[in-house]
Amino acid sequence: MNFSSKLLENAVNEVAQLPGIGKRTALRMVLHLLKQPKSQTHNLANSLSNLVDNIKLCKKCHNISDVDVCDICANPSRNEEIICVVEDVRDVMAIENTSQFKGLYHVLGGKISPIEGVGPQNLTIESLIEKVKLGTIKEVIFALSSTIEGDTTNFYIFKQLEKLQIKTSTIARGIAVGDELQYADEITLGRSILNRIPFDKSF
Amino acid sequence: MNFSSKLLENAVNEVAQLPGIGKRTALRMVLHLLKQPKSQTHNLANSLSNLVDNIKLCKKCHNISDVDVCDICANPSRNEEIICVVEDVRDVMAIENTSQFKGLYHVLGGKISPIEGVGPQNLTIESLIEKVKLGTIKEVIFALSSTIEGDTTNFYIFKQLEKLQIKTSTIARGIAVGDELQYADEITLGRSILNRIPFDKSF
Repeated sequence: MNFSSKLLENAVNEVAQLPGIGKRTALRMVLHLLKQPKSQTHNLANSLSNLVDNIKLCKKCHNISDVDVCDICANPSRNEEIICVVEDVRDVMAIENTSQFKGLYHVLGGKISPIEGVGPQNLTIESLIEKVKLGTIKEVIFALSSTIEGDTTNFYIFKQLEKLQIKTSTIARGIAVGDELQYADEITLGRSILNRIPFDKSF
Repeated sequence: MNFSSKLLENAVNEVAQLPGIGKRTALRMVLHLLKQPKSQTHNLANSLSNLVDNIKLCKKCHNISDVDVCDICANPSRNEEIICVVEDVRDVMAIENTSQFKGLYHVLGGKISPIEGVGPQNLTIESLIEKVKLGTIKEVIFALSSTIEGDTTNFYIFKQLEKLQIKTSTIARGIAVGDELQYADEITLGRSILNRIPFDKSF
């Protein structure tokens, strides 16, 4: 692409580094910004700079937060005996939206993935084990994605927790509510039959 | 969406104002930035702020430029007797990439579109007519998109230029190079038959 302006070229190149954005889409976005009031672009630029300069990770659960201890960890009505292990802030948001979990979270910051160069030392696993050793926690729930990387991470943490004799569980895998059986994949369907639950508990 | 951080929420809301970006995609982009070195986000923010603060429109052709008169208008080897009328900078870039046009451009900044509230007074049509009245220009080529809005704009400008007795032309519409006839729409195919050209000129 030959740009008529260095300023335009720089902006497009920077925007094109965002995930899923190519040069053409970046150009469309930048030209859109040029048609809006300058204040919109300044707000965008400031909000991004502010975010990376001032964001903190909660000291307890490692979730993204504005303060040292996040709202969930600081809430006295949450049950600190149950810890739900998740990958990142999006999973916390998804589970919070269900209103079904009243315990605390532990955000790993990723999954063990040798291909992407992420080992156990890059995640907050050590801090989770230390937390469990303090003795308050009664149960650890694994809520990672059902992928090779997620299962590996679950298993790695499970092996460390085994010696501490603590209750561990994983979120149920099965047919999604509203899904039709005929379209379900056989592994999910197979597991949902093996792990069937008493009918009166399914509401 | 319930965010654990106001900073995160602000950044996501600002990014989600870009065209084609929803809240979920915005969140993915912002979390991606948080995993990169801070400098990347600062570069992105600075390049956008710099762009909107310092960008200029070329005084002659109204194309986006870093200086008062853009490189194309300032180039003495370009033929200033032929003006190609385009919608925005992307069309200039597309035509420049073909290396087939050696004249100058005139960037309208949009198309006449009553639905979007864009009238002739919002475009640089006035300035084009003034330019033609100076007498140097011999031919005006219309190179707008082949849509209702593009055709309306072409016709509006054509009506203004008619009195000035200047040569006007429009880029050829027809079957794209590499396209198969059977998949062409009938309007395009019909026009390409009506506007057929001598065989020896088709190379």
